[in-house]
Amino acid sequence: MVYRVIRVAVAGASGYAGGEALRLLLGHPEVEVGAVTAASSAGTRLGDVHPHLMPLAERVLAETTPELLAEHDAVVLALPHGASAALAAQLPDDLLVLDCGADHRLADPVAWKTFYGSEHAGTWPYGMPELPTAPFSTTTSGAAPDKQRAALVGARRVAVPGCYPTGISLALAPGFAAGLLEPDDVVVVAASGTSGAGKGLKPNLLGSEVMGSMSPYGVGGVHRHTPEIEQNLSGAAGEPVTVSFTPTLAPMPRGILATCTATVRAGVTAAQLREAWNTAYTDEPFITLLPEGSWPRTADVLGSNVVAMGLALDERVGRVVVVAAEDNLTKGTAGAAVQCLNLAFGLPETLGLPTTGLAP
Amino acid sequence: MVYRVIRVAVAGASGYAGGEALRLLLGHPEVEVGAVTAASSAGTRLGDVHPHLMPLAERVLAETTPELLAEHDAVVLALPHGASAALAAQLPDDLLVLDCGADHRLADPVAWKTFYGSEHAGTWPYGMPELPTAPFSTTTSGAAPDKQRAALVGARRVAVPGCYPTGISLALAPGFAAGLLEPDDVVVVAASGTSGAGKGLKPNLLGSEVMGSMSPYGVGGVHRHTPEIEQNLSGAAGEPVTVSFTPTLAPMPRGILATCTATVRAGVTAAQLREAWNTAYTDEPFITLLPEGSWPRTADVLGSNVVAMGLALDERVGRVVVVAAEDNLTKGTAGAAVQCLNLAFGLPETLGLPTTGLAP
Amino acid sequence: MVYRVIRVAVAGASGYAGGEALRLLLGHPEVEVGAVTAASSAGTRLGDVHPHLMPLAERVLAETTPELLAEHDAVVLALPHGASAALAAQLPDDLLVLDCGADHRLADPVAWKTFYGSEHAGTWPYGMPELPTAPFSTTTSGAAPDKQRAALVGARRVAVPGCYPTGISLALAPGFAAGLLEPDDVVVVAASGTSGAGKGLKPNLLGSEVMGSMSPYGVGGVHRHTPEIEQNLSGAAGEPVTVSFTPTLAPMPRGILATCTATVRAGVTAAQLREAWNTAYTDEPFITLLPEGSWPRTADVLGSNVVAMGLALDERVGRVVVVAAEDNLTKGTAGAAVQCLNLAFGLPETLGLPTTGLAP
Amino acid sequence: MVYRVIRVAVAGASGYAGGEALRLLLGHPEVEVGAVTAASSAGTRLGDVHPHLMPLAERVLAETTPELLAEHDAVVLALPHGASAALAAQLPDDLLVLDCGADHRLADPVAWKTFYGSEHAGTWPYGMPELPTAPFSTTTSGAAPDKQRAALVGARRVAVPGCYPTGISLALAPGFAAGLLEPDDVVVVAASGTSGAGKGLKPNLLGSEVMGSMSPYGVGGVHRHTPEIEQNLSGAAGEPVTVSFTPTLAPMPRGILATCTATVRAGVTAAQLREAWNTAYTDEPFITLLPEGSWPRTADVLGSNVVAMGLALDERVGRVVVVAAEDNLTKGTAGAAVQCLNLAFGLPETLGLPTTGLAP
Repeated sequence: MVYRVIRVAVAGASGYAGGEALRLLLGHPEVEVGAVTAASSAGTRLGDVHPHLMPLAERVLAETTPELLAEHDAVVLALPHGASAALAAQLPDDLLVLDCGADHRLADPVAWKTFYGSEHAGTWPYGMPELPTAPFSTTTSGAAPDKQRAALVGARRVAVPGCYPTGISLALAPGFAAGLLEPDDVVVVAASGTSGAGKGLKPNLLGSEVMGSMSPYGVGGVHRHTPEIEQNLSGAAGEPVTVSFTPTLAPMPRGILATCTATVRAGVTAAQLREAWNTAYTDEPFITLLPEGSWPRTADVLGSNVVAMGLALDERVGRVVVVAAEDNLTKGTAGAAVQCLNLAFGLPETLGLPTTGLAP
Repeated sequence: MVYRVIRVAVAGASGYAGGEALRLLLGHPEVEVGAVTAASSAGTRLGDVHPHLMPLAERVLAETTPELLAEHDAVVLALPHGASAALAAQLPDDLLVLDCGADHRLADPVAWKTFYGSEHAGTWPYGMPELPTAPFSTTTSGAAPDKQRAALVGARRVAVPGCYPTGISLALAPGFAAGLLEPDDVVVVAASGTSGAGKGLKPNLLGSEVMGSMSPYGVGGVHRHTPEIEQNLSGAAGEPVTVSFTPTLAPMPRGILATCTATVRAGVTAAQLREAWNTAYTDEPFITLLPEGSWPRTADVLGSNVVAMGLALDERVGRVVVVAAEDNLTKGTAGAAVQCLNLAFGLPETLGLPTTGLAP
Repeated sequence: MVYRVIRVAVAGASGYAGGEALRLLLGHPEVEVGAVTAASSAGTRLGDVHPHLMPLAERVLAETTPELLAEHDAVVLALPHGASAALAAQLPDDLLVLDCGADHRLADPVAWKTFYGSEHAGTWPYGMPELPTAPFSTTTSGAAPDKQRAALVGARRVAVPGCYPTGISLALAPGFAAGLLEPDDVVVVAASGTSGAGKGLKPNLLGSEVMGSMSPYGVGGVHRHTPEIEQNLSGAAGEPVTVSFTPTLAPMPRGILATCTATVRAGVTAAQLREAWNTAYTDEPFITLLPEGSWPRTADVLGSNVVAMGLALDERVGRVVVVAAEDNLTKGTAGAAVQCLNLAFGLPETLGLPTTGLAP
Repeated sequence: MVYRVIRVAVAGASGYAGGEALRLLLGHPEVEVGAVTAASSAGTRLGDVHPHLMPLAERVLAETTPELLAEHDAVVLALPHGASAALAAQLPDDLLVLDCGADHRLADPVAWKTFYGSEHAGTWPYGMPELPTAPFSTTTSGAAPDKQRAALVGARRVAVPGCYPTGISLALAPGFAAGLLEPDDVVVVAASGTSGAGKGLKPNLLGSEVMGSMSPYGVGGVHRHTPEIEQNLSGAAGEPVTVSFTPTLAPMPRGILATCTATVRAGVTAAQLREAWNTAYTDEPFITLLPEGSWPRTADVLGSNVVAMGLALDERVGRVVVVAAEDNLTKGTAGAAVQCLNLAFGLPETLGLPTTGLAP
């Protein structure tokens, strides 16, 4: 066994997010996979739950307990929404806790209560390093935009972002941060692979139902990721931003394609828009802004930690259209967790994270 | 051979639209399939081109000539955009010509020139019977809305609608006809199966490229169906309507799911919206307005001539969201052609047209 | 309401086989859909269970009782294996009972017990009209092969065949009936769409698990359809035939592709083989023997009652290879039931049954 | 730029095999990607051809010339069959040439001529390290089987195996090497993802044609991989082995599932079979023999260099059934090339090669 610096446990390892965390951690040169735990699946051979993780096939899922998790340097919580807050409260302060659930993402207790129905568990540093957190100027040279990354270096609690908010927030934040977009006319329609809906046994998620078919869900502004997107865009804009968001289910196991549009302020040009996105992302290793006229495909980011996006101004109607592609399980969940782990422990931010997708 | 009343030729029978026309015509009790013609595929056994049309397997594709087509009662033109106008000009006036191409859809020569680049070929009756063609009141009882159907009864020239405009126009027209929607803030994102892109050999349409992947195209308001959608909605509204439209390619062979949103006028309620859609479609055999909280899936309309739609008001942002599902080849093309054939010849409008989808 | 001759109930209407039966019955010109019944889903709106059956959306699933079923002319039993025998025993003798389950297919009580584990419920006429039931000669002109059809005309009890046995038996039976194949070296590998596994909530049937993936199951001769296939082929051969059968799950909702191979007897030529298949199927409306060098695709028989097959002799190894495609829910289940209903009531055998597939 | 030891060029980089080679080489810690070359695509930006290879997006495809390739330590030839021999003849002897084409795989010139139609170009060391090359005993403890690996250490010419022969040969070779199987009754049916058919623009490879559909091709023993499989199994058996092989196309971009059956010699038990496979593969890092009753899925090896297999004895018919899953582009092509590169240069055999698949 090669010595590895950081021992990482994965709680909720039987689900899709947990499995993806394990896949990435196995490929991370400074990480040793520690305990893999679950609730109802405890006692099961990992090879029966995640047969694709062949190097871990003979591991057995342990029961999730704070004591077991506390024996590690870091823990990825891949639990159902609402389940991580209570567990996290029992974990040591110096243990890095990467919560893939929603429990600690929202700053506004009212938004939390409205969309999740339970009591607010408090807010943790938000695990989206590339997100602009304040307005910036594209004309003042040299001034790098403020970003969320600063709050993550050395952190020991991280609220890993939701899968939809990742691509959508990164797709639109530069325009808001640069003051180019109206805050009250954002419309987003996104298509997600079925792994985004989890591994629960629901009739509408059967292969026979989803293959060859597209369908919407959570229509009418009721999807729980809506306030998270608004929080991110409002932070970038420095003023409240509202969003119409419609998610759809696509016949593919992984991937999100988010079509994000907003009304541009009067007089804004295509060149100004591209300049703002360039300013925001030119140095970001995990964001690819495609050349004009090129558009992303979800296949190109499968298993990759990259968000790829293309941008156009529809002058006829005065809207910018940004289409972003990501892997909902990688950059949309587990990859972001590993990226934050790197930041938290002072490692190179890109360590162990793929920037190539598995295509075709 | 059972006697059949109407002999119908299909020109451009080697493509997907032509194949679907043949599939539907084979199941039509009053139709006899006449000549099946093509350009470069002339001379080919139909069984080699459309192996699913087994009753026609031994037919051979003839060359498309006006003389051959003229021997029929009706002809479906399933030709590339721009190819049907010249051919149609050589066909007898009393032959029913159902043009699945775009050539005769747009009333505005400038819009045609802008989006298609060639000279305008004139406008034919538009083959969308259910489309409201003027504002209507939901409160004056008994007054059935004016619809496009009136122009199709007995027609001998029909411009069959585009696949995207079908679902999108029908999804939003009631709201415009009832005066409930703002005309300048429509945003539509639609996902289409790959058959919508035709049978041409393009690298991005290979199975290896499209399976498991979503991607956008024609982003930024440049898709050719945009002016057709605007024309339809403007007719219903009685004032100019503009649309932001982004199409995407989904990993499925057939089907369109269109997420259509528009800002509602101040004070408009969910009940008013539902009332308007009910008024427009209560008697329409090929439009299914799903109950509140139910949403359509493309699988449920595969091979069916139905557009299924669900509707919600997002009160937080003041937008109505209507999601519509259709089969791009059936109601989106060939089914509409057959529906118009029924109207043109005075047959029951639903004759030979499936209202069940092939699911799962 | 148009008058319809035959009232048909569907028991087990909430599953995939039941749904397909309803889809076909809706399109049958002499049938009126009667009661739709279920067990745990009783009380549910049919539109919530089978949204693709729009004309029946407002029907409510009734509880399955013999009294209710007895009010009809015919009943399709689409129940789990082992559930139909007890119910059928309570139904009137003059009610046509079409059992889509396995309960009454096998003649050999030992084979039943070995593969199904319960007591044998007796044998009903087997619903595969095209199956040769005895050896035939391809050289004695004029002598039409004996077929299973004879046992179905006027029948009131029918054991509808299993989905795999349908394509596989029809693929190989002519060779056995004509005495061209060795009885002890049949190898079949078949790929099925996921609807063949039913609507039960199993983790391995989730869309995330099946999309983009092939996997085997029931490997090693343990699949329950094995004795049914052997029974059919033995009947055609006039001697016991054994079969190595491996089923696999394919990433598609419908369809079976069965690759069926057998060692040919010494000296058998490709021409003899083709002659035997021609002799068996030349007049069969639901069997398409493709020309030499052409091979079937499952897409071409989607929703169709046709089995399409291609045939080749591999002279290097002395095996015939027949590849057959069918829709597991149509010809593989519900279509066969309707075909038998036609035979039982003296209607044209093809009435209401599609012979075109839904492609692309 | 980090210093990297080995500079590797990829010729034919625009195809799927070339793209996969680049994906793996990018993740290899001792490799620097050198020239990327093509024929008709020369001059194209790599980002337009393989958008998933984001780190190489701005590279431009060069024209394939021997001079350019000769500047490297190794070259991967991912060219059409028949194109690599002429090019390879112009390359220096000390340059490692990894030929993903078929040109140098077959030892028998007659078999080459029969299946490929051109002149035989000679035979290179065959790049399947795990393949037993001679009969072995499972009872004599300590005697490790002879394997192909020996011929690859330090090699400078490697014939990378075909995608089908990889999984199929490895699935059956242990049984032949251990003397447990009859040599004249092997039947294999395999399902491949569409990338196995390459990137050529053929109508039957369009997404609309392949999604939701299974179809066979090369039926009747005519597929070019047949003699390669027979060569491999004959080597293991020490006597001529013949194979009936039928390939099918599955609706997925990647992956092969091969169902491989053979008649066992009289008296062979399930325990003997498992022992033989264990003897052959217990130390192989890229072969996973699943526990009894477990079966592989192609999704579990996507992007991985592993062949996973399950094994059962069907005692009723006296056949062993081994089902093997692989990624046709990884272990089936480019991964094998990188594995051989590691062996050729004396690196750890597993360096840079994933053993986890991308699931779900």
